Amino acid sequence: MADRDEAGWRERLYVVIFEADTPSGKAFDVALLAAIVASVVAVCLDSVQDFRQHHREALVAAEWLFTGLFSIEYLLRMACVRHPIRYATSFYGLVDLLSILPTYLSLIIPGSQHLLVIRILRLLRVFRVLKLGRYVSESQVLMTAIRNSRAKITVFLFSVLTIVVVIGAAMYLIEGAENGFTSIPRAMYWAIVTLTTVGYGDITPRTTVGQLVSSLLMVLGYGIIAIPTGIVTAELTQAAHPQPVTTRTCPVCLTEGHRTDAHFCRDCGAQLLRDVDRAATSGD
Amino acid sequence: MADRDEAGWRERLYVVIFEADTPSGKAFDVALLAAIVASVVAVCLDSVQDFRQHHREALVAAEWLFTGLFSIEYLLRMACVRHPIRYATSFYGLVDLLSILPTYLSLIIPGSQHLLVIRILRLLRVFRVLKLGRYVSESQVLMTAIRNSRAKITVFLFSVLTIVVVIGAAMYLIEGAENGFTSIPRAMYWAIVTLTTVGYGDITPRTTVGQLVSSLLMVLGYGIIAIPTGIVTAELTQAAHPQPVTTRTCPVCLTEGHRTDAHFCRDCGAQLLRDVDRAATSGD
Amino acid sequence: MADRDEAGWRERLYVVIFEADTPSGKAFDVALLAAIVASVVAVCLDSVQDFRQHHREALVAAEWLFTGLFSIEYLLRMACVRHPIRYATSFYGLVDLLSILPTYLSLIIPGSQHLLVIRILRLLRVFRVLKLGRYVSESQVLMTAIRNSRAKITVFLFSVLTIVVVIGAAMYLIEGAENGFTSIPRAMYWAIVTLTTVGYGDITPRTTVGQLVSSLLMVLGYGIIAIPTGIVTAELTQAAHPQPVTTRTCPVCLTEGHRTDAHFCRDCGAQLLRDVDRAATSGD
Amino acid sequence: MADRDEAGWRERLYVVIFEADTPSGKAFDVALLAAIVASVVAVCLDSVQDFRQHHREALVAAEWLFTGLFSIEYLLRMACVRHPIRYATSFYGLVDLLSILPTYLSLIIPGSQHLLVIRILRLLRVFRVLKLGRYVSESQVLMTAIRNSRAKITVFLFSVLTIVVVIGAAMYLIEGAENGFTSIPRAMYWAIVTLTTVGYGDITPRTTVGQLVSSLLMVLGYGIIAIPTGIVTAELTQAAHPQPVTTRTCPVCLTEGHRTDAHFCRDCGAQLLRDVDRAATSGD
Repeated sequence: MADRDEAGWRERLYVVIFEADTPSGKAFDVALLAAIVASVVAVCLDSVQDFRQHHREALVAAEWLFTGLFSIEYLLRMACVRHPIRYATSFYGLVDLLSILPTYLSLIIPGSQHLLVIRILRLLRVFRVLKLGRYVSESQVLMTAIRNSRAKITVFLFSVLTIVVVIGAAMYLIEGAENGFTSIPRAMYWAIVTLTTVGYGDITPRTTVGQLVSSLLMVLGYGIIAIPTGIVTAELTQAAHPQPVTTRTCPVCLTEGHRTDAHFCRDCGAQLLRDVDRAATSGD
Repeated sequence: MADRDEAGWRERLYVVIFEADTPSGKAFDVALLAAIVASVVAVCLDSVQDFRQHHREALVAAEWLFTGLFSIEYLLRMACVRHPIRYATSFYGLVDLLSILPTYLSLIIPGSQHLLVIRILRLLRVFRVLKLGRYVSESQVLMTAIRNSRAKITVFLFSVLTIVVVIGAAMYLIEGAENGFTSIPRAMYWAIVTLTTVGYGDITPRTTVGQLVSSLLMVLGYGIIAIPTGIVTAELTQAAHPQPVTTRTCPVCLTEGHRTDAHFCRDCGAQLLRDVDRAATSGD
Repeated sequence: MADRDEAGWRERLYVVIFEADTPSGKAFDVALLAAIVASVVAVCLDSVQDFRQHHREALVAAEWLFTGLFSIEYLLRMACVRHPIRYATSFYGLVDLLSILPTYLSLIIPGSQHLLVIRILRLLRVFRVLKLGRYVSESQVLMTAIRNSRAKITVFLFSVLTIVVVIGAAMYLIEGAENGFTSIPRAMYWAIVTLTTVGYGDITPRTTVGQLVSSLLMVLGYGIIAIPTGIVTAELTQAAHPQPVTTRTCPVCLTEGHRTDAHFCRDCGAQLLRDVDRAATSGD
Repeated sequence: MADRDEAGWRERLYVVIFEADTPSGKAFDVALLAAIVASVVAVCLDSVQDFRQHHREALVAAEWLFTGLFSIEYLLRMACVRHPIRYATSFYGLVDLLSILPTYLSLIIPGSQHLLVIRILRLLRVFRVLKLGRYVSESQVLMTAIRNSRAKITVFLFSVLTIVVVIGAAMYLIEGAENGFTSIPRAMYWAIVTLTTVGYGDITPRTTVGQLVSSLLMVLGYGIIAIPTGIVTAELTQAAHPQPVTTRTCPVCLTEGHRTDAHFCRDCGAQLLRDVDRAATSGD
């Protein structure tokens, strides 16, 4: 009986903490999200000199409060889940752990509490909490488009890297250290700043030849942005307009390209094969 | 009789002020647009030190002239509209009010007259006035495309925010206050400047590790611009190529969405209506 | 007879100068293009301080040489063309005139010879000369895509202008003259620099609120680039995949969607109407 | 017999060096890639002042080691290939030679060893080695899309060049040398920096008119990025959605490109073959 009670206690806790369908589960998740946002804001404010000087105690208190809460939550999660090890080594389990460790670490290594911003990753739960099924499916469409474009994007990044290395070295030779191109890695950093059209202006070409090479690099960078854009767009367009399956053939008149949900040939009215199979199955 | 006259007076005023089809209505609207543009230009010029010193009186006169005109117009609109409260709380009603308030406010709080640029929003009426039906429909296509992309764009912005928080905090730890990254919010500002490829150069990484992280962030920002672009393009392409008409309905099982060249229902095999017509034609 | 000779002389000149199919016409055009490029390069070099000091005489000579040649060419064009006024007021006629005027003008107003770069526009003839029909047709595809997108692009530009005015005025109030936002027009210039992701860094926000507003503007600018891109891409995709004309209907079986070049119904083999018309016309 | 042995020796060497299917061939290629990456990293580090001072001897040793290895490899390639001249003048042969020459050259001309980064081009072999057939085919899709867009992109680049020359000259006249626009070529460099939205900020407009012209140029540059993007996207979309198969040919008039669902030739009305088959099947 006590055993069943305990089991019931763990189960109820599991429903509250891990599920979001029940009122108590939803309330817990919303409170958790609020605490995550508040703790990330506190970490950010803690790094602002002025703010820290005037509110030092409040910030330290908030940090330990949130860390305490998250630590308790972590232990409860470990307690009520069926496979603690599996949870602890999952993506969310690791993020949950990394969200409390830096505070304890800051007792030994000062400054490490800024790593707490990793807590922002806990916000990814937001999709689950708000039942944003639609958002999840949309992000899966994006993910699929990106995954399908992987090979093209790898080729593209490899080309960009080759351009950056070659142009970087060339500019190091052309401009030299006196114009800010103090080494090839630094010239490569400049090449990336230029190619991506960021253009800080912390290093700029000053010789005529250097400005000419830069101009070519800029036009190149301005133009090749078209390539990843074209790749992703083509994928997303294809995802929006899936090709109709065209391998289904009418057994009587051989018309091809029937929709996957068609039962009869649109041309001669004969039953299509998948239906025939079904009829064969249910006929006996 | 006087009552009917008054009603007639209000009606005529309504036609002039709110409608744009009659000659007087159009003339009023064009004059209004000219006054709006002139008043916005006056507000802009008022903020230019040199210009203000030499034309102070003209500017003050212009400001009070336009405010006076717009105030009278506002009162007339309130007078002739059937539901004054509904107008006052509508988008255009609020913009109309906000377009005159700052001048009166500037008597109490100096400087607030610069808020008058809000008058630019009154220009949105331009579409109505110029009968640019085509432009309105085009902007609706754009709006629809953006609205359909809302979920994808939210996911995208949320990802960007997460990247900015994590990279911002990392750069704060890597570069530190001596290189301009004085706080996490400021480092996040830098991350946005970099990710969006704006690249002011007011804060730039100086350590080698910082430049490496920046380079990754730049390539990321350069690449992920492809995502919103792909989303909007796919939507606009879909708007331009609507899926084939699907109004053909099977007369037997009422399945919709048959291809225009189909002869038989894909669901029950019944002959579709156009075929029946042909049979009737060739039968005799 | 003399009259005919003269006519023949003008005609031969016309063929050389205006046409590009004959050997002499082509030779003339190639020589002209070379002269245009050389003269633009000369104007550019003339503006370089160091170069001018050492080669002043050569540059002046080149300028007057090219201006002389182009003047003679202009007079010959006027002489041999059938409607001199029509040529003089055409686009190319105006460009030809503007390409020689600045040199004469520079005798009165020093410095105006730099306007000679307008000669670069004469290079547009390059397409005609090199018989780059394919390039012309490609640029027409681009032009058509841009023209079709006109309404959408106008709406887009109007929205951008509204954003720039409102944000510019807001930043003028937030940052103030001490941070470089000395007037609303200057703040609007900053807003354009930021929204277009150019980001010179000559004016940058320094207050926290200003950096927050800037961040929003940057993300906005980063995102809405998707809109013109989407518009043009959708147009170009449509140009590549023209919708099949689907109003042609078979008079016998009423199948729709025949290709514009079809003569017979693809479904029942009956002659389509356009053919019938033709038959009716030639039959009598 | 000795002759055959030698031939066997050359053949075995050829398999190891030039092919990547055998275990030894693959091992050789992987080792080669590692050596290439290591040598490029060494060249990059060699340009870093601090690093060079402390590790001068190691770097010199590494440089000569890699150059020695690559020299031996080059000679072996020349020895075992059937047509040494053809290899030596091929793209890879030239890259292989250029990858070793600078070190020897640096004995005569100091500093030329930085040209060794050309070795990065040898990495293009990576695709061959890792048997990344998929990546090669993807990069061919990209190449085809870019090649098909060549004419459109040439027109686009020519337009950009014209804009840059005209705006550059205009800004030189508007801003003048005292604001950094010291010559037309330099102003053209600024125009490219602005049009491509790089925006270093090393040269910025300071006059009101200059800032107005710059704003127009920025909006232009921001907008016309849509054009190359649209071009490439349209090509990639077309590559993903090839036009329906058009190999069906009319047996009477030989017109090609009939729709897959056509029964009769759209040109002469003859029955298409698939229909004839059907008739043959049902006729008996």
